[in-house]
Amino acid sequence: MIHSLSLSDVLADHARSRPQVTAVVDGAVRLTYPELDERVTRLACALSARGVAGGDRVVWLGQNAHAVLELLLACSRLGAVFCPANWRQSEDELRFVLTDLRPAAVIWQPSDTTTSLHASDAATTWVQAGTEYQELVASGERTEFAPVGDDEPTLALYTAAFDGRPNAALLSSAALIAHATTLLVVRQMEPGFTFLNNGPLFHVGTMMFCLATLQIGGTNVFTPAFDAEEVCRLIEAEKVTQAFLFGQMIDAVAKANESGKYDLSSLRFVSHSPEWDDMITIDDSPWCRSKMGGYGQTEVGGMLTFLGLAQGGSGFAGRPSPLVQVRILGPDGTEVPAGEVGEICARGKTLFSGYFARPDLNTAKSTHGWHHTGDLGRREPDGTITFIGPKLRMIKSGAENIYPAEVERALKSHPAVADAAVIGTPDPTWHQTVKAIVALEPDATTTETDLIDHVTTLLASYKKPRKIAFVDAIPKRGFTPDYDTLDTTHGGGNYPGS
Amino acid sequence: MIHSLSLSDVLADHARSRPQVTAVVDGAVRLTYPELDERVTRLACALSARGVAGGDRVVWLGQNAHAVLELLLACSRLGAVFCPANWRQSEDELRFVLTDLRPAAVIWQPSDTTTSLHASDAATTWVQAGTEYQELVASGERTEFAPVGDDEPTLALYTAAFDGRPNAALLSSAALIAHATTLLVVRQMEPGFTFLNNGPLFHVGTMMFCLATLQIGGTNVFTPAFDAEEVCRLIEAEKVTQAFLFGQMIDAVAKANESGKYDLSSLRFVSHSPEWDDMITIDDSPWCRSKMGGYGQTEVGGMLTFLGLAQGGSGFAGRPSPLVQVRILGPDGTEVPAGEVGEICARGKTLFSGYFARPDLNTAKSTHGWHHTGDLGRREPDGTITFIGPKLRMIKSGAENIYPAEVERALKSHPAVADAAVIGTPDPTWHQTVKAIVALEPDATTTETDLIDHVTTLLASYKKPRKIAFVDAIPKRGFTPDYDTLDTTHGGGNYPGS
Repeated sequence: MIHSLSLSDVLADHARSRPQVTAVVDGAVRLTYPELDERVTRLACALSARGVAGGDRVVWLGQNAHAVLELLLACSRLGAVFCPANWRQSEDELRFVLTDLRPAAVIWQPSDTTTSLHASDAATTWVQAGTEYQELVASGERTEFAPVGDDEPTLALYTAAFDGRPNAALLSSAALIAHATTLLVVRQMEPGFTFLNNGPLFHVGTMMFCLATLQIGGTNVFTPAFDAEEVCRLIEAEKVTQAFLFGQMIDAVAKANESGKYDLSSLRFVSHSPEWDDMITIDDSPWCRSKMGGYGQTEVGGMLTFLGLAQGGSGFAGRPSPLVQVRILGPDGTEVPAGEVGEICARGKTLFSGYFARPDLNTAKSTHGWHHTGDLGRREPDGTITFIGPKLRMIKSGAENIYPAEVERALKSHPAVADAAVIGTPDPTWHQTVKAIVALEPDATTTETDLIDHVTTLLASYKKPRKIAFVDAIPKRGFTPDYDTLDTTHGGGNYPGS
Repeated sequence: MIHSLSLSDVLADHARSRPQVTAVVDGAVRLTYPELDERVTRLACALSARGVAGGDRVVWLGQNAHAVLELLLACSRLGAVFCPANWRQSEDELRFVLTDLRPAAVIWQPSDTTTSLHASDAATTWVQAGTEYQELVASGERTEFAPVGDDEPTLALYTAAFDGRPNAALLSSAALIAHATTLLVVRQMEPGFTFLNNGPLFHVGTMMFCLATLQIGGTNVFTPAFDAEEVCRLIEAEKVTQAFLFGQMIDAVAKANESGKYDLSSLRFVSHSPEWDDMITIDDSPWCRSKMGGYGQTEVGGMLTFLGLAQGGSGFAGRPSPLVQVRILGPDGTEVPAGEVGEICARGKTLFSGYFARPDLNTAKSTHGWHHTGDLGRREPDGTITFIGPKLRMIKSGAENIYPAEVERALKSHPAVADAAVIGTPDPTWHQTVKAIVALEPDATTTETDLIDHVTTLLASYKKPRKIAFVDAIPKRGFTPDYDTLDTTHGGGNYPGS
């Protein structure tokens, strides 16, 4: 065990090295590292007393709270696997998660969906967040736990559906700590870093910064969900260094602080708009300087490549994280030459340990000794990586491969276009034809012919859309178009990868 | 192998991600990452053809050169162990290294010692640096090597003698890469970093920055040994970001550039003297800001704690690296309370894999599941660590433990004292008594009584030296007093730890 370092170990060390540092803030709750360490030991002990053993799953059904971090650390201490489920999902979707994971314990916040799930599940231990959870922690004793190897899975995050159902990516302490460390490098995080967890902790984007903040011995501030005014208040009150903010969220925060009521100068973050830049401190780390660009997925622990490591290369996903290897592989597992499209594949310290209970999928995704991301990419001649799009969304027209993201970028470069998504529709002669769904800027006008001509000036003719549907807004799943919905609505299908 | 990342893998990835970046500069030699990658493959292949197999040792007997990095990377590719030996040692000392390691190949630069060793060893493959080495590289083919697990030892560095002979600390790729990554964090290294290897590569201090520079895809510049004028020339010519410079070396470089002949502004380094600060760019990373302070040893991969992570705590070794755990343990393996002295013990990702061919020592050093550094330390109430001194050098006087470093610091705070070392001499009544060896500042005068009084104003009376010997200079081993020589010369002995 001399080389092992689990999340539980990181906490145990901070409890000694940083006895006065505030580890978590959540409403009226403030815990130093020794206090958090003691609560995590008690919680691990209490869960163990309720029958949670090594390898068992523990599920959180609720919004962001410091309990999420406590449960993850207690599971690490016990050797169990923690899953913060997406509480925004429907009752059926959450029921699938519970059926899939078969958890030994569920900690839940009451809502229409969770109350109904709770009522129909008598077999599992359910602990309600709030008083019942606090009593659980208090019931635990201060015992010593034998160290758990850092290659054991400790976090499960549900991610993309490959066969019609979502899959729980398992991440070990070693992978989570390695990824956290790459963020320390690229974001140049130091002790004293304070992160506001305002994005959902069931997504890797927020979780990875929560864990990097833990890793460097900083302070994690929790808020149930995004609220622009509350974000302003917490940034000022807790002297927050960074929050989980993008595009429209930044606009909303800037608007909430239009009057300058809150002092947001502790935030060291990306440049965005003149109003925003006046409120905060622009940070010069590679992460912020490059506007947080890169390529990633839950299965690689978060980010696989960083634009901040690119030094001006042409591939807009940048260069690989210092703790991974990346190869662009063809279907036979051999590397494709620079400039050609293949599947983005990876090895390294930040990678996941497979999906929970998906042996066949795990074998398929790790063929040829590399993790296959399911995404297409290209190595540019300068060595940087371009992300092309999901492999399953590649369009086949005649003998040609067409990548939606490339056509979407061409469409979005037209001044009248606010957003665009590209799908393939079945075609008896050509297998598929390209169809674009476009949302225009307010008050802008253009025609189908005009947009197709615009794409033709930028891309090879075979890539141009044959048809364009105009809509008010593109449906989204996170930051990417919801292609399943678009296919259903606009007649997509016949994808070669599916 | 999906989670493995060896030094060889790092190089292979840079060859793809950074095809135009200069990896090494050594005199007229300049190699890009793809060129270095190809040479390393050929070298690995050529060594394999000469009979070097997985686990075998390869020794370098010579000054700094890019061949040192090439040999390390080729050994990583092969699964062999590379040892850059200390070429400054005597013929007998080097003969011990060869007898101890039983290398499969020795690459050597001719000198009085190495020529004699070469003449007396017909059994091993000896390859002379220069033409013969270049022919060796050229003789190798471009073959694919099966990946080697990153937990295999790949570097051997000789370090402290515990039983009268030095021991080769074995470091795996995983440990070396983890340590390099902690330097990326604490030194805030980015792509474009250029490191001047002017310190000896057989010591971890220079090697660790060489490997961190490799890790981030920067440029390693090699120079045979420290020469102040040549250091100036290389900093300007290669726009060096950092060199291996301390105290008097910095003074020498500043003096060599007194006229301002060289532009040293590319150097981003520690503040030192007004002249120096005017020549360079002061760096604000935690590493430089804290004057590169901390505690380390070869066995932990370099640094275990960093002053740059301390945020003003009182322990002058700072706080642990983000990838390790530190405990201060008593002789029974239990943790001693904050404020009390115990042995500094560690676990984590940067730790070594034991000493080569020292099974008993390895068992002793890893008792209770922790690596025992052999150094005494104290956890301060604020959580920071104070390094007290080597356990074997603890002095026992009556019932009291006396730590030489503490008495030395007290002596050195006297304005007349340039340097000081403290030993224990055998005493029939008290077991040992404290004796100080002191070198005075030029033209300074003081007396034994004056210095003893000075110590008494700072420390408990039982710690004060009973005798003081005045010398011109304290003999050194690296940066620390050569206590073995001092004991022999000044009558030391009877140490309780020995």
